[in-house]
Amino acid sequence: MALIDVKVLGSAPSPYVNRVQIALNLKSVNYEFLEEESGSRSELLLKSNPVHKKVPVMIHGGKPICKSLIIVQYIDEAWTDGPSILPSDPYDRAMARFWVAYVEDKLWPTLKGFLRAEGEAKAVAREQIMEGIMLLEDAFAKCCKGKDFFGGDMIGYLDIAIGSFLGWMRATEKASDIKLIDKTKTPGLFGWAERFGSNAAMKNVIPKTETLVELAKTMAPRAKAQ
Amino acid sequence: MALIDVKVLGSAPSPYVNRVQIALNLKSVNYEFLEEESGSRSELLLKSNPVHKKVPVMIHGGKPICKSLIIVQYIDEAWTDGPSILPSDPYDRAMARFWVAYVEDKLWPTLKGFLRAEGEAKAVAREQIMEGIMLLEDAFAKCCKGKDFFGGDMIGYLDIAIGSFLGWMRATEKASDIKLIDKTKTPGLFGWAERFGSNAAMKNVIPKTETLVELAKTMAPRAKAQ
Repeated sequence: MALIDVKVLGSAPSPYVNRVQIALNLKSVNYEFLEEESGSRSELLLKSNPVHKKVPVMIHGGKPICKSLIIVQYIDEAWTDGPSILPSDPYDRAMARFWVAYVEDKLWPTLKGFLRAEGEAKAVAREQIMEGIMLLEDAFAKCCKGKDFFGGDMIGYLDIAIGSFLGWMRATEKASDIKLIDKTKTPGLFGWAERFGSNAAMKNVIPKTETLVELAKTMAPRAKAQ
Repeated sequence: MALIDVKVLGSAPSPYVNRVQIALNLKSVNYEFLEEESGSRSELLLKSNPVHKKVPVMIHGGKPICKSLIIVQYIDEAWTDGPSILPSDPYDRAMARFWVAYVEDKLWPTLKGFLRAEGEAKAVAREQIMEGIMLLEDAFAKCCKGKDFFGGDMIGYLDIAIGSFLGWMRATEKASDIKLIDKTKTPGLFGWAERFGSNAAMKNVIPKTETLVELAKTMAPRAKAQ
């Protein structure tokens, strides 16, 4: 049996960590998962990511790589045998990167803000999220080119960046009176989410919605106390 | 004469816009520069970047690409004839991306904050910036591998991401009592900055320090009024 020279330092419910797991699964790369205990940081984590001290970190052949989206791009470039994660056409790559940056810098921070906000601020955040979701619905139509995923026939970079948050999106829907992905309003994203979630690469990766709802309850008081 | 099918929508003193100009110069690609007037947005800009409504936008063969770092990567992938902007080795690429994300998400926001801060907050920001600069000094030693630039023999992705801010860094030094790049404390970055600034690809790109100092004076009151 081949030596596993890939380690992933992570925390199972983290969508950022899940991205790395999904990318490795897509490329059929075996890896060892080293769970970081909640609230503490291992020596290996501090040594591997001294700048940010955060998961995920992937260690490949002894070399650490940090930050989820950088790791996903590295996986695509280091294991060229498997299916491509980024599109091959430069313009399609730029579009995928554009929407990945959008969800990363705009949509997820707004979603996190929504969960913590109250009163008028919550109403504003709700509107911003729904605008963002409608932009993604349009982006899906443009990127998928009539196929199953943002990446076309296969799950790609943008699918991973958004799909890794599907569990948290569903947990948000359960915990609040908001509907993010809807069969009627966002039929493209609705079908995409079903296909993404049932793909073999997600097996044992995206946490159960119930687990995240419970986790969110314990996190909310902490967030308020900050 | 070949038709110029590359347009850059920008504002000359913007380091983000400068990144696109530097990358095009490195690849010897001719382009038409369309200056966006300060305080207003052209119809072309609004149409080309409806999500963020910001410069830079590059239009290549009629197709718009937005966000400076995404445009730089696109330029590298669309014009493969010229020198490579990103390293060829996957791990070196990941390292370049890591430090680019660091300056983008941490260092420049701290630098902007420093310019606006007063009293104790300014002292904290100053310490954070100097920590960041020392991290870059170390990163330079690791990335350049004894050569002239972060990218090795040639100006690369990380050089562009940092170097585009050299004018603003010098303007900050002139406007405040802070020394960011110093011959004794950061000899690696000091030599690098000299080489970067005198490279042919910078010709007519990075604005003069005096221009930026004057511009900063007009921007500071606006920032405070927000």
